[in-house]
Amino acid sequence: MISPPSPTIDLNSDVGESYGRWRLGDDAALIEVVTSANVACGFHAGDPSTLRQTCEQAAARGVAIGAQVAYPDLGGFGRRFIDMDPTELTDAVLYQLGALEAMARVAGGRVAYVKPHGALYNAVVHHETQAGAVVRAVREYDATLPVLGLPGSQLVGQAGEAGLPTFLEAFADRAYTPVGTLLPRGQAGAVITDPVAVAARVVRMVVGGEVEAVDGTVVPVRADSICVHGDSPAAVAIVRAVREALDDEGVSLRAFAP
Amino acid sequence: MISPPSPTIDLNSDVGESYGRWRLGDDAALIEVVTSANVACGFHAGDPSTLRQTCEQAAARGVAIGAQVAYPDLGGFGRRFIDMDPTELTDAVLYQLGALEAMARVAGGRVAYVKPHGALYNAVVHHETQAGAVVRAVREYDATLPVLGLPGSQLVGQAGEAGLPTFLEAFADRAYTPVGTLLPRGQAGAVITDPVAVAARVVRMVVGGEVEAVDGTVVPVRADSICVHGDSPAAVAIVRAVREALDDEGVSLRAFAP
Amino acid sequence: MISPPSPTIDLNSDVGESYGRWRLGDDAALIEVVTSANVACGFHAGDPSTLRQTCEQAAARGVAIGAQVAYPDLGGFGRRFIDMDPTELTDAVLYQLGALEAMARVAGGRVAYVKPHGALYNAVVHHETQAGAVVRAVREYDATLPVLGLPGSQLVGQAGEAGLPTFLEAFADRAYTPVGTLLPRGQAGAVITDPVAVAARVVRMVVGGEVEAVDGTVVPVRADSICVHGDSPAAVAIVRAVREALDDEGVSLRAFAP
Amino acid sequence: MISPPSPTIDLNSDVGESYGRWRLGDDAALIEVVTSANVACGFHAGDPSTLRQTCEQAAARGVAIGAQVAYPDLGGFGRRFIDMDPTELTDAVLYQLGALEAMARVAGGRVAYVKPHGALYNAVVHHETQAGAVVRAVREYDATLPVLGLPGSQLVGQAGEAGLPTFLEAFADRAYTPVGTLLPRGQAGAVITDPVAVAARVVRMVVGGEVEAVDGTVVPVRADSICVHGDSPAAVAIVRAVREALDDEGVSLRAFAP
Repeated sequence: MISPPSPTIDLNSDVGESYGRWRLGDDAALIEVVTSANVACGFHAGDPSTLRQTCEQAAARGVAIGAQVAYPDLGGFGRRFIDMDPTELTDAVLYQLGALEAMARVAGGRVAYVKPHGALYNAVVHHETQAGAVVRAVREYDATLPVLGLPGSQLVGQAGEAGLPTFLEAFADRAYTPVGTLLPRGQAGAVITDPVAVAARVVRMVVGGEVEAVDGTVVPVRADSICVHGDSPAAVAIVRAVREALDDEGVSLRAFAP
Repeated sequence: MISPPSPTIDLNSDVGESYGRWRLGDDAALIEVVTSANVACGFHAGDPSTLRQTCEQAAARGVAIGAQVAYPDLGGFGRRFIDMDPTELTDAVLYQLGALEAMARVAGGRVAYVKPHGALYNAVVHHETQAGAVVRAVREYDATLPVLGLPGSQLVGQAGEAGLPTFLEAFADRAYTPVGTLLPRGQAGAVITDPVAVAARVVRMVVGGEVEAVDGTVVPVRADSICVHGDSPAAVAIVRAVREALDDEGVSLRAFAP
Repeated sequence: MISPPSPTIDLNSDVGESYGRWRLGDDAALIEVVTSANVACGFHAGDPSTLRQTCEQAAARGVAIGAQVAYPDLGGFGRRFIDMDPTELTDAVLYQLGALEAMARVAGGRVAYVKPHGALYNAVVHHETQAGAVVRAVREYDATLPVLGLPGSQLVGQAGEAGLPTFLEAFADRAYTPVGTLLPRGQAGAVITDPVAVAARVVRMVVGGEVEAVDGTVVPVRADSICVHGDSPAAVAIVRAVREALDDEGVSLRAFAP
Repeated sequence: MISPPSPTIDLNSDVGESYGRWRLGDDAALIEVVTSANVACGFHAGDPSTLRQTCEQAAARGVAIGAQVAYPDLGGFGRRFIDMDPTELTDAVLYQLGALEAMARVAGGRVAYVKPHGALYNAVVHHETQAGAVVRAVREYDATLPVLGLPGSQLVGQAGEAGLPTFLEAFADRAYTPVGTLLPRGQAGAVITDPVAVAARVVRMVVGGEVEAVDGTVVPVRADSICVHGDSPAAVAIVRAVREALDDEGVSLRAFAP
């Protein structure tokens, strides 16, 4: 197989998800490896001081700061669908964008893209109204601000129609179905935990433009960014393995956001 | 007595303090009368949709939007002192500034000044560390952003030293002591509720530069803005009476913030 | 028409829904009229001091205290469906039951029944898993504690199967469809606001066991309690009109809870 | 040295301090070692499911469940003084007592004592009004419920005057001043981290009734319970070392609460 024209990819990961006394993930280590940092905005995680420190770490290393907007749900870590009215969802997203922007700003950076978190991320794959509410917030806030999402999602579709720059992501450690969707988390084998296997999959996604589904089918993948998870015990090891494997293949890492 | 050189004054009032199902104050009516709106930022009051609507009302009428930053305390409405560490207070203020800025921005405006709320307002009169933390947040966020505060307060003193524009306020409906400080709220007569009396006091403050203290002493007052309260039942009537009395005296109303 | 055997009914209303600085409803006035008070438990509304005062008012007048358990959602007043896991919902209900029990206890009373609030009330009409989670909480807490709900709901059905005492309610000011369900709030005419009309409907429900649906059809109603809403401006007037009309018909009011 | 009359002591530790996605401490391991578990009540930490699981673990091992009541401050983990009005503090404590009682009840146990957490613990050492507010809550809730606190504190003094059972604690891993108070956390050497040293100190406290202060002075200690901290990385190792050292000395461990 001939290599695709662009040997460049972005790696994104969730950071800034500590809250007060509670620590989560090794942000400093992750930020040394990824090129885009999805920073929590205080609604599902992330107290103001955590957000600021995370933005400072990202800015110091030239890592793009993304707003990981979420439902207002500290107790559920933003992982529970909330049937918010579109107006209140739009305004909740705006509030979070502004709050994180202040932190990015004092760190010498800025919010460079938006990626919904958790249950909101899942909702805006199919939920037209909530996807529209998120898109409306981003467009009202800054019509040049990119949106990062799942290929084929309502979010990406509506963002594109609204004239927002859109970027697509694939998942490093998640199993795919034969039709190219993610195998639901609850199912056996849905999450791949072996760093070597994850790294090999990412290389094949980026260099080959394809991934092997759970049933062995090879399905095409088109991604501007690869999402690597940061909150598992082995997270940093996996992210480093991915980065090294990409380096070995001559793929350069670069944030998708301008 | 000769009139002071400038027959111009600002009127400021707290708005945006509803929260979800709970309504507080008649923001639309207040915003028709005042020249500066201290908009809540979500920590003591103000859900995102309320903040946005309030900013839209203010922007539509050319009323300056101030950030009414507060302790994180919905249950106490920001009226309870919280012994926050200066770093976390600075970051909490930054978070609020950014969140409100997003709302002001989509409304076509911007945050034009900062005025702490409730217990934080009272704390930064004397509490050096917390005053310094608020000043640091404002300076880091935007070193040209004005601070509105009490004459002689740590907040105004430290803001001035830090090079921030500072403005002073007097209170329309609060009794003063012979040394020019406010009579504590708990004491009899601390709050003046008669619209005619309040209006007369404001005229004397603005035109005469003085106020009659509780013991009859006349004390000098120097204010760039007069604070009128908006959450009492008679609030709108009082604010209108103040505005009319000032109009009658030929005092023009104008926001202090550029 | 021959009167039904029992000329006794319960009136229930939501109370304790203030929060800190924000007041909602005239609890004292409502508690003088109703026989069962659905007291908020702090998750959608109700700070601890409000809950205590409300319980004291109810206990002083011999009004039954019900636990108005809800989703954790102050910002949405518990009116947004949250896709909570059944285990966390069960535990959230237990937490609220215990918290309100403490308030009832120091007031000399006790929690006498459970009625879910808002979006949770609506969810447990059809949502088997969430209804089961609420039932499990009540049964684990006290297997003799009654549940108040909508006729035909999952909640009442599963509570009955679990051996909990169940009671049914009808709505004083809500329009009914020809099949005996409530006309959704969004539709025209869904809420009846004329005190005289509401009172007449309640009398017909209680004495006649029937209600006229929106299309004029007469549908049977079987209720142990009539829910009257307390948070609209005219609420107290409506509740008083209902009570007077029932008094005039010789219907005695009595709490359903033992 | 002659042994004191009672070779029995209680070990208490903070547990139940996880919150949603965030884990803190190894509760299961701690509960295997201590005899009294100070369980968070949801205000500074502890979501409902965590509280329930913790109560179930404690009840299963016959460990006494204490209510670790706190200021409402998830963001600050209850470590920031909040200037709460005594009435609202009393009611906040009652709310927490009831909530935890529900969890203890479904676990087959009950709340056996009260120990304030963090900044509230520190406040009620000297703050008469807040100490009185906590005492009032406990007395109103259950006048036989024991209070655990610092020797000489307002809390213990007022609780005793109010007729509540009171118990005193000493700290296993904290340095003492020559007058028998704790060396403030900020100072060098305030926290002792060597398991062997901590265990030796506890043995000397329990068997000898004394502790060596930072300057070498030997000061008397009278304690019904020894507090061991559970949230540091080495916490479980320390607690086990303490328990083993006490076992070796023939000291039996038993909850102070009846």
